[in-house]
Amino acid sequence: MKNTHLSTDSYKGVRDFYPEDMAVQQYIFEMWMRTAQSFGFERYDASLLEPADMYRAKGAENAEMVNEQTYTFIDRGDREVTLRPEMTPSVARMVAKKARTLSYPLRWYSIPNLFRYERPQKGRLREHWQLNCDIFGSTDISSDVEIIALAHQLLTDMGATTDMFEIRVNDRRIMEQLYTELGVSEENIPAITRLNDRKNKIDVTQYKDELLKILGDDTVVEKVITMLDTDDTKSELVAGLALLGITNVVWDKSLARGFDYYTGTIFEIFDVSGENNRALLGGGRYDNLTSMFGDEAVPGIGFGMGDVTMRDFLETHNLLPSSITNTAADVVIVPQSAAENLAGQAVAHQIRQAGITASTDIGTQKVGKRISNAGDRGAKFVLVLGEDEVSTGHLTVKNLSSGEEQSGQLAELMNFMSVA
Amino acid sequence: MKNTHLSTDSYKGVRDFYPEDMAVQQYIFEMWMRTAQSFGFERYDASLLEPADMYRAKGAENAEMVNEQTYTFIDRGDREVTLRPEMTPSVARMVAKKARTLSYPLRWYSIPNLFRYERPQKGRLREHWQLNCDIFGSTDISSDVEIIALAHQLLTDMGATTDMFEIRVNDRRIMEQLYTELGVSEENIPAITRLNDRKNKIDVTQYKDELLKILGDDTVVEKVITMLDTDDTKSELVAGLALLGITNVVWDKSLARGFDYYTGTIFEIFDVSGENNRALLGGGRYDNLTSMFGDEAVPGIGFGMGDVTMRDFLETHNLLPSSITNTAADVVIVPQSAAENLAGQAVAHQIRQAGITASTDIGTQKVGKRISNAGDRGAKFVLVLGEDEVSTGHLTVKNLSSGEEQSGQLAELMNFMSVA
Repeated sequence: MKNTHLSTDSYKGVRDFYPEDMAVQQYIFEMWMRTAQSFGFERYDASLLEPADMYRAKGAENAEMVNEQTYTFIDRGDREVTLRPEMTPSVARMVAKKARTLSYPLRWYSIPNLFRYERPQKGRLREHWQLNCDIFGSTDISSDVEIIALAHQLLTDMGATTDMFEIRVNDRRIMEQLYTELGVSEENIPAITRLNDRKNKIDVTQYKDELLKILGDDTVVEKVITMLDTDDTKSELVAGLALLGITNVVWDKSLARGFDYYTGTIFEIFDVSGENNRALLGGGRYDNLTSMFGDEAVPGIGFGMGDVTMRDFLETHNLLPSSITNTAADVVIVPQSAAENLAGQAVAHQIRQAGITASTDIGTQKVGKRISNAGDRGAKFVLVLGEDEVSTGHLTVKNLSSGEEQSGQLAELMNFMSVA
Repeated sequence: MKNTHLSTDSYKGVRDFYPEDMAVQQYIFEMWMRTAQSFGFERYDASLLEPADMYRAKGAENAEMVNEQTYTFIDRGDREVTLRPEMTPSVARMVAKKARTLSYPLRWYSIPNLFRYERPQKGRLREHWQLNCDIFGSTDISSDVEIIALAHQLLTDMGATTDMFEIRVNDRRIMEQLYTELGVSEENIPAITRLNDRKNKIDVTQYKDELLKILGDDTVVEKVITMLDTDDTKSELVAGLALLGITNVVWDKSLARGFDYYTGTIFEIFDVSGENNRALLGGGRYDNLTSMFGDEAVPGIGFGMGDVTMRDFLETHNLLPSSITNTAADVVIVPQSAAENLAGQAVAHQIRQAGITASTDIGTQKVGKRISNAGDRGAKFVLVLGEDEVSTGHLTVKNLSSGEEQSGQLAELMNFMSVA
């Protein structure tokens, strides 16, 4: 072994989850699961290792993303492998593989970890987890309504009220029509969409300059800007959401989304507190993605919701339950000295056989300290085990919230502890 | 976009989890969580990206493992990164980082995915998940008893009976003493341990040849073989497990375990059916591992249990519950035609607000087929929505198991559906 010590730091831009952070992570994942399942979504998963070609297939811009913003390496079998930067291509691959035998519409969700090679910053790390929810096999507007209703419910189930967040929606088909009416040629639309994706990050002058570069005509530039600023869209989607009582919805013609593969509805949800500027969630309709893999184009609509922004949102609005850190077993056995440690194991074992969670605290701290630690961590009962208790089998259990105690042989105490 | 289609296959040696496989995976993970938590274990996690040096630090043999059997690559910041092949170094790193502020004994568990670059074979893939359970900060024998009792309980909680599996135990301290008594020099012991780790994979002649190469003396070879075959160890660990009623335990002096870092108790659990030859679970005591990272050596004992071998075991013994594939929402709404799809969303939304899980089946299959699909997937109620139902709001819900129906306005039907 070397004399120098290894660093205890994690790799740059990724997180260690100590139990107190993991409890928050688990709370978020469990709430995500519960809400997704309440809509009848089924969970799937895939490996984070995917062929690099999958992320290049959509054109030159994606190829750049693969080369500069992903973890991509060559394996010993000369395969180029990428740590997935997003889940949608993987799920499209899985759907394409069984396209003929799956029964539609599919409602699928997963909670993958995703990797991006970029400078870590607020709300954005090199590895994060993301809830992905998708409906495949339906172009019906009711699916667009459903996927946004699910996004909405995910937030309200965690205690958010509708004044805390805003749903921004747009539609690439509608935008295409509006641009065409203003005389914008079809090949310029993707460039405008990509520019709009950066609109909030640049100033007005720069925006106009870049728009002029794309369009080459001042008059059209002004028309486009006026059109984008005019709130006149009547949308079936907004009406459908209203039918469900979901009205914190804003039609935003500048909403662009980063990915080229969207073909219709696109949407993002934002915290309106001003504390968190990144979208909590974003998604859209992609009706051609599976055709990368085969002749069958299975339409899809879905979104991704990240754990880092989610936690920021919950903390900003004070929505994390305080009971999250209650991680102790219901019954904690405190051996008075090391001589009672093995007997403590046997007692804990018998309590668990009765379906009650139990652990021993064989720490070297004083008995009183160990009892109060157990309470702090959410234990409901403590059972102190000394020499007498072990030799006679006559035990005393204390209810930590009421202070009530009961004594007797272990079998006689099970009822008292089973209210845990 | 290219004209040729991308492959729908996953990367070699990893798995796609379609919902039916994911349901099994989720069942296994949930049972693991439940049992670990019943012992008072707290969940933690770390990133799968770790500095490659961490796996080299234990000496030349591990360096070879890093170079030949792991996914290791150089990132753009010139850091050498490894996809973790095991969790123990990561958890030792985390414990070392907070060694002075954590309160011991710690009971920690995680369910990480692990990566090995090797030829995929039965029970062994390039990516697998593994339950890791560890106790830190105690050298007391009761901790060795507890960690094996937990391993035992993990299997029995999933329905295994004690005649289905066998716990094999050994102790590196005891073996060291026995080898020393036979005149084996200390520096030869690690080589014998590594040879024993391959003992079941080679024949007797080869084993003797290799042992002779290490020891250089026929007489000592015979003595070692006789010693290994003699079942005469009296162990505090076996006695402690017996105190808990755990008796499917075999002392196995040939048991070696692959990792150099073990310092005391080692153990493995095997399926005794003959169908699955790989260990279901393996672990041991490692009292010096955290000292790679700092001056404080926090003793540890733990094990890892893989998802692939676990599933093989559960399938061999027919222990997977059939209800695993019940993934439908409790109430399935079946719109008769696309005209009722949006109304179906609104009905589902209202049912979910009452705390009942609900989804619509807007598939193009016939109504009868969609009703039977819902039943097959575990739905408890169906609600068919036609033009009349939408216009009058007078709905009929059917209980799929009893056949009972109830009609009325939606609000009047909530009680009927809430038995779900």
